[in-house]
Amino acid sequence: RPVREVLFFPSRPCCIEALLAEAAQPGAPARPCPCPLPSGDTALSRLVRRLLSARRSLDLCLFCFSCPQLARAVQLLHRRGVRVRLVTDAQYMGLHGSQIGRLRHAGIQVRHDQHSGYMHHKFAIVDRRMLITGSLNWTTQAIQSNRENVLVVEDAEYVKAFQDEFERIWEEYNPT
Amino acid sequence: RPVREVLFFPSRPCCIEALLAEAAQPGAPARPCPCPLPSGDTALSRLVRRLLSARRSLDLCLFCFSCPQLARAVQLLHRRGVRVRLVTDAQYMGLHGSQIGRLRHAGIQVRHDQHSGYMHHKFAIVDRRMLITGSLNWTTQAIQSNRENVLVVEDAEYVKAFQDEFERIWEEYNPT
Ligand SMILES: [Zn+2]
Ligand SMILES: [Zn+2]
Repeated sequence: RPVREVLFFPSRPCCIEALLAEAAQPGAPARPCPCPLPSGDTALSRLVRRLLSARRSLDLCLFCFSCPQLARAVQLLHRRGVRVRLVTDAQYMGLHGSQIGRLRHAGIQVRHDQHSGYMHHKFAIVDRRMLITGSLNWTTQAIQSNRENVLVVEDAEYVKAFQDEFERIWEEYNPT
Repeated sequence: RPVREVLFFPSRPCCIEALLAEAAQPGAPARPCPCPLPSGDTALSRLVRRLLSARRSLDLCLFCFSCPQLARAVQLLHRRGVRVRLVTDAQYMGLHGSQIGRLRHAGIQVRHDQHSGYMHHKFAIVDRRMLITGSLNWTTQAIQSNRENVLVVEDAEYVKAFQDEFERIWEEYNPT
């Protein structure tokens, strides 16, 4: 049965170490994390779980990306061999706390716009099959403090519309 | 067949006078608008059409609302007897160009948050039946200059999740 989920934020802060460890080494015994945060079922942990379900590709189209927890999840997927492509907004990628430089250094393909208008999308497509989209910018402030929504939609028609938009932007922002 | 639509922005600027006139007086002969803008099929005109389809209620949950064209559509619905409720963000409603004051003066019920975090949603629910949600803030700049997405979803499960979120916020922001 296709995934249909709505996540509302703010999310309680939570530890995602167990989720990351399980994704890095499935079945390995979990080491307890020393941080004081609870590891419960939250909007953030659900979002991370959806992202970590990627097996082949992850296409990201994000106005801003400064949340270290989500950046760790993306880096883990990249190390696991998932093809990650990231499109972002030029004005925001240089700001303090942006994770874009770190992801680029890790070897992830990043492209950004050249225009005065904002690249204001905030969506992800997992394995060209699952669309994750909403109002949420990928910042810790938005996750923990704002009222936000994220839809998770496994529906070929909606996914295709966003995948096509991603490919258009990816080509348009090709620097070569 | 339920509506399923994806709108991508930026939208070409367009004249929506004919749409507004038809909604105000269905079947009345159209008077040509003197403005130089084309009245074509654009992402903006499609969004306006969906809003103008409201017959009983329009629930708006908008981070910022400064687009005069969309404000005219909302005012028209209010005059036509549609029950309009609007939730917005306190920090943005006082900014230059905000349409919130004008809508409130027109008699539309408006509530806003009291918190430091942003009320960052950008969704509308038409007749408790159709959800309109995405990355788009209701500003002329976003509509004409940004890359944005809006989903139009006539699906009871998704609509209910957002309607419940709207009612929660509406009660939480009750000033009395
Ligand atoms: Zn921890
Ligand atoms: Zn005109």
